[in-house]
Amino acid sequence: MDFESPTPGRLLKAPENFLDADGVRQVFAEAKAGRRDFIRKAFAAAGAAVAAPLVAAQSNPVPAAGGDPNILTLPEHSRSLGQGVGVEPYGQPSKFEANVQRRQSPGLSQTTQASVAFAPLQSLFGIVTPSGLHFERHHQGWYDIDPSKHRLMVHADDAALLKKPQVFTMDELMRLPSVSRFHFVECGANTSMEWANTAVPTVQYTHGMLSCSEFTGVPLRTVLEMCGADMKRGRFVLAESADGSGMTRTIPMSLIESGEVLLAWGQNGEMLRPAQGYPLRLVVPGVQGVSWVKYLRRIKVGDMPFAAKDEVLGYADLMPDGQQRQYTSTMEVKSVVTTPSGGQVLLDKGFYNISGLAWSGRGKVRKVDVSVDGGRNWRPARLETPVLSKCLTRFNLDWVWDGRPALVQSRATDDTGQVQATYRQLRAVRGTRSIYHNSAIQTWLVEANGEVKNVQLS
Amino acid sequence: MDFESPTPGRLLKAPENFLDADGVRQVFAEAKAGRRDFIRKAFAAAGAAVAAPLVAAQSNPVPAAGGDPNILTLPEHSRSLGQGVGVEPYGQPSKFEANVQRRQSPGLSQTTQASVAFAPLQSLFGIVTPSGLHFERHHQGWYDIDPSKHRLMVHADDAALLKKPQVFTMDELMRLPSVSRFHFVECGANTSMEWANTAVPTVQYTHGMLSCSEFTGVPLRTVLEMCGADMKRGRFVLAESADGSGMTRTIPMSLIESGEVLLAWGQNGEMLRPAQGYPLRLVVPGVQGVSWVKYLRRIKVGDMPFAAKDEVLGYADLMPDGQQRQYTSTMEVKSVVTTPSGGQVLLDKGFYNISGLAWSGRGKVRKVDVSVDGGRNWRPARLETPVLSKCLTRFNLDWVWDGRPALVQSRATDDTGQVQATYRQLRAVRGTRSIYHNSAIQTWLVEANGEVKNVQLS
Repeated sequence: MDFESPTPGRLLKAPENFLDADGVRQVFAEAKAGRRDFIRKAFAAAGAAVAAPLVAAQSNPVPAAGGDPNILTLPEHSRSLGQGVGVEPYGQPSKFEANVQRRQSPGLSQTTQASVAFAPLQSLFGIVTPSGLHFERHHQGWYDIDPSKHRLMVHADDAALLKKPQVFTMDELMRLPSVSRFHFVECGANTSMEWANTAVPTVQYTHGMLSCSEFTGVPLRTVLEMCGADMKRGRFVLAESADGSGMTRTIPMSLIESGEVLLAWGQNGEMLRPAQGYPLRLVVPGVQGVSWVKYLRRIKVGDMPFAAKDEVLGYADLMPDGQQRQYTSTMEVKSVVTTPSGGQVLLDKGFYNISGLAWSGRGKVRKVDVSVDGGRNWRPARLETPVLSKCLTRFNLDWVWDGRPALVQSRATDDTGQVQATYRQLRAVRGTRSIYHNSAIQTWLVEANGEVKNVQLS
Repeated sequence: MDFESPTPGRLLKAPENFLDADGVRQVFAEAKAGRRDFIRKAFAAAGAAVAAPLVAAQSNPVPAAGGDPNILTLPEHSRSLGQGVGVEPYGQPSKFEANVQRRQSPGLSQTTQASVAFAPLQSLFGIVTPSGLHFERHHQGWYDIDPSKHRLMVHADDAALLKKPQVFTMDELMRLPSVSRFHFVECGANTSMEWANTAVPTVQYTHGMLSCSEFTGVPLRTVLEMCGADMKRGRFVLAESADGSGMTRTIPMSLIESGEVLLAWGQNGEMLRPAQGYPLRLVVPGVQGVSWVKYLRRIKVGDMPFAAKDEVLGYADLMPDGQQRQYTSTMEVKSVVTTPSGGQVLLDKGFYNISGLAWSGRGKVRKVDVSVDGGRNWRPARLETPVLSKCLTRFNLDWVWDGRPALVQSRATDDTGQVQATYRQLRAVRGTRSIYHNSAIQTWLVEANGEVKNVQLS
């Protein structure tokens, strides 16, 4: 299987081309040689008395005699009117961040339309995934559908299950009472290659089918009430997409009755992106991404699961006894350290901020423990606020690296008491032939030279 | 003063060119004629028996004989492999959302570098502002600074105020203990034109110098502790930018000691955008935007306010007696209805979701009341969660419009008990000659024909 070059991430920041292996080696060599923090060292060597001349230089455009011009003269951007003339109607990231991008794994699918694009978790902060970097999983490419032509039909075969079938325009949906909520979405196949201990190189490939956004829409419950649905007899709903994949998934009415399931048009403040189902997608908090049907065109109420193609031919879990688990939807409690993670390089001993993400499809994250010795000792991480239900939670922990090999892990516990399993525990129940629902503890090996590798502890 | 065409927003959605006035009139006329919801009406007229054929048509690519092809045949996007071949490394919004963009007010400044770009609040959902639509206020354009060359100097003139002056690289800052927090940023001059009852047409121009993001960075307190700052004697800090404007602002140490003030590099999950101060900006929650110094290059500890150029020549409030208020920083409790708002058109009587934003620089929003009769009667709005300190809060309220003129207002109360003032109350204290810190209650007039206008009640 082919992979694009790993992204070294934040611990390693060469001026350019830092994606390729030569660049990684060069920066690492420079760090060893002490060239990358020359200012700090020069400053420390000269002592605090240097402070005053530095201040003067920073306020004075006249170049000082001799010395590094980066230090002792004002850079171009401090002396001019700015290169950004006017304002971009829609802004873009810095050119220095061009390397922070979604990456595909060409070997994973046979056509470019049936594609997977992984989010660069190693380069992200906090819990919001920028919409431009949201992971993508397409079953038949994506479309930019004209919202003025898009319709949602809500119906049932039996009038006893739904009295008033209706077809809604986007205008009609968007004037209904809306809510806004932060939720993660994770593909059921996230971390799937690790079942077989493939050990793909970076967290982008191990866990990058995971993103988190603020979604806005109308609760499906509200629309079903408008249509006179019987939510006791109609125990299941079929959701169908308008794209060529004709994605169809069964959603239990119990989730809808809670008010959590949304007909969503907003994501991170703006309309959904086309690749995320514009103009309408189902949001099913805590449930695997395939059920978050994009380009949503139809909701059908029924009294039993629909055994749709997308829940029979795929998205079932092969168990050790040869049977398949079906309708496995909830994403179990899970976490991963994103810094340091595979492909990154620690440039020196000393302080690091271990940072990562935790989540549970059953509720809130209660705590995250971090180990740097492969699970022998654990320390509780700081959870950044807000800690929300069925949402990513960012954790951070102080760490002083002594330069010896370290095995970095995180272990999340959710507010139902579920604890993230080790690979040994998970395989004892699920075997090694599964694709979906791998929520095991991830291990990163920090080698003595600072390079970070993906390993599995047996 | 020139303004670009207003954005009608979500209540009005013509197929194309819906920005221009002709388009607005056309859609409004079509809505009156009932053409825009033809499917729903056709469906209702034909009765529920139509449901089965519609379902068959949706699942069957053969066009039915006669009828509207949009209804009875599958659209192109349901029959093909998808136009999105492969995956964009960095995704973009739908082409149908091209109208949702930042807009400038050319009359406001003399050069394109000293620019203001307003966020399209009327088109946004929830509390997160997409980074591409974040408002911008530049004093001297913007730069895309190479982060490997950027430095932050932390120092003082007096070693008793700060023992160990240091210069930090971005690498050095980004390995320190970081936090992630959601905060709003509002320009002190937001809503400034309303002081004189100029009544600019849309909420983008009245309130669009307001945005909200998840920021990630290290607390400035941590860095000052590393440098041996005396936070009792050093009661103030100067923050200075590296761009040509040399922006300089005084920050009280009391804010920094609370741990809220951040040296931030992350915004909404990724690195700051260049126009937002990449690679480093100060985040000063609750305080006006000018103090969130971008391209931050210097922090200096002092024992009195610095009376810097940017707090003497500007950012002072002219009072009725001719004196100026100086060092006014905190953004007071404020709110605005974004839907319906100026430039939008209500297409018909009936249900609408009144939606808006509330915020306070002093803490959390406790409640938001909404009036549709110019402040005679008030109803409490629903606050979307999470409600966070010094962060935007989204509110929603059900409303059935009876087709008569309505005066829509919102009034926020924060958790310190402060209540948003009317224009009459504000002017009684502050007069009419101010520029900054207008937090008064905004009024939108919904006319009988559905058009929404900006008005001020005397």
